[in-house]
Amino acid sequence: MHYLVTGGAGFIGSNLVDRLLGLGHRVTAFDNFSTGLPRFIEGARANPNFTLIEGDLLDADKIVQAAKGADFVFHLAANADVRFGTEHPRRDLEQNTIATFNVLEAARLSGIRQFAFSSTGSVYGEAAVIPTPEDAPFPVQTSLYGASKLAGEGQIAAYAEGFGLKTFIFRFVSILGPRYTHGHVYDFYRKLSADSSRLPVLGDGHQKKSYLYIDDCVDAILTVTQKADGKVNIFNLGTNEYCEIVDSIRWICEELGANPKLEFAGGTRGWIGDNPFIYLDTTKIRSLGWKPRHTIEQGVRNTLQWLKNNDWVYQQRG
Amino acid sequence: MHYLVTGGAGFIGSNLVDRLLGLGHRVTAFDNFSTGLPRFIEGARANPNFTLIEGDLLDADKIVQAAKGADFVFHLAANADVRFGTEHPRRDLEQNTIATFNVLEAARLSGIRQFAFSSTGSVYGEAAVIPTPEDAPFPVQTSLYGASKLAGEGQIAAYAEGFGLKTFIFRFVSILGPRYTHGHVYDFYRKLSADSSRLPVLGDGHQKKSYLYIDDCVDAILTVTQKADGKVNIFNLGTNEYCEIVDSIRWICEELGANPKLEFAGGTRGWIGDNPFIYLDTTKIRSLGWKPRHTIEQGVRNTLQWLKNNDWVYQQRG
Repeated sequence: MHYLVTGGAGFIGSNLVDRLLGLGHRVTAFDNFSTGLPRFIEGARANPNFTLIEGDLLDADKIVQAAKGADFVFHLAANADVRFGTEHPRRDLEQNTIATFNVLEAARLSGIRQFAFSSTGSVYGEAAVIPTPEDAPFPVQTSLYGASKLAGEGQIAAYAEGFGLKTFIFRFVSILGPRYTHGHVYDFYRKLSADSSRLPVLGDGHQKKSYLYIDDCVDAILTVTQKADGKVNIFNLGTNEYCEIVDSIRWICEELGANPKLEFAGGTRGWIGDNPFIYLDTTKIRSLGWKPRHTIEQGVRNTLQWLKNNDWVYQQRG
Repeated sequence: MHYLVTGGAGFIGSNLVDRLLGLGHRVTAFDNFSTGLPRFIEGARANPNFTLIEGDLLDADKIVQAAKGADFVFHLAANADVRFGTEHPRRDLEQNTIATFNVLEAARLSGIRQFAFSSTGSVYGEAAVIPTPEDAPFPVQTSLYGASKLAGEGQIAAYAEGFGLKTFIFRFVSILGPRYTHGHVYDFYRKLSADSSRLPVLGDGHQKKSYLYIDDCVDAILTVTQKADGKVNIFNLGTNEYCEIVDSIRWICEELGANPKLEFAGGTRGWIGDNPFIYLDTTKIRSLGWKPRHTIEQGVRNTLQWLKNNDWVYQQRG
């Protein structure tokens, strides 16, 4: 198989690229390096089955060219920054909604028949049902990020119906693991490295969140794309557990031997549109035989160790 | 109040404009006349409280200028053509998703605090629950039109959360009445005028659809914007009944004294992504005291009479 992976130099993308190459597939990665890093694809570039195309998905012609000859698209490129949407409201529209349309058109024009997409549990807004199943009550969006991913989902489903694509939509919780370069573990390690005596924490620390380890995430993606056989295959990806932010802080501090004073900003939410309780029902993907091999605690600890051993990402990403 | 009405020269828009002017409000209509017609706002233009701005919503600066000084936006402009999405897939993205974003930004930049939007029952796809309530199970999109309206809904809800707008989202069934210029009554009358001996019908004629009369629709819109007090107020608008296409054909033929041979294309759907059964649960808006004053049959018959008396729309719209 020849896979096109948009965002192929990013956190999830580069891990998926390595896995696909390891399975003997041909892979074209498309990335604008807005958050992806060249070092994440150093190994891939040594493989003759790998091609890198540097470009932005708003360049519709470029992604059409990149898609030529591919059999399957993993569209993972995105503005993945859920927190700062209101500071630059057009970014989610452009980098998520319009970019996804451009990739769909490229797939259609290139005769690609299968299309997988990284959506998010944020599309459930403040879910009325927890753990939240894929067919939860029609949610109300609470963030521009979630809204832009939902827009992508809708376009993909309409392409499946209108043009016969087979599609896979993954609603992720937050992902942890090697090459992770944004989120609370990343931020807390940077802050504690600068000053281990205190740690500012958004909200009251009791926000409840789910996390999934990157290897389990890639396993899940490949399980679904191999086994699901509908036209529009929508799957939650997450663990059967959640933690509070204060739990994660405790694990991080143990790994670092730190004992900071926690300074809570207060309130139940970390930011406008933050969902204080994210916990997805993963019955559907478990029915395909997949289950995660890492707990949230293992994921947080492994991620912290990877960040300690790869301090260079802070120089490159800030 | 000073209202900005996008699509103000269109079917629903011009009817709403006339109502608002009749109530003594100031109205700015914004329209690109892609489907709106100058004759629909002839009456409005004689009113000193009315301003027309001709422009396209993809011109972000122009809508920002138009929004200045308004208190409330009715964003009704859209590509309302659910049927031909696959022939020009970018149109729904541009005229619905991106256009809606541009109007939201204009509202935000102009300090407008209230925003109403014409969404569609098509966002329910092939609904699992009929009659379909606003909190139906999370639907899968089946048309680019529905997907683009859902994208608009999501952006609006995220703006409500992020920027404090008070918002109103209306999920319409098809609307009938004076100034109606597309849909099955429009098409059937044109076909029967050309040849009353035969009538080609998409699908098997047993598609079940709901329709709402324009006066009832405007009543409903004004009821909700006056009475609903949430941050994101989502309301289905429809009648407590549905008809089959063959019922509507019978009423149309009776009005015309025609007796054509019906030539069914066959299949349960009129086109790719057509929903063969649209029937919305309107319990929520009825709880505000609104109810429709016209049956579907009255709506179809009145619309046919209006088309007979206003043949000029076929010259202008084709």
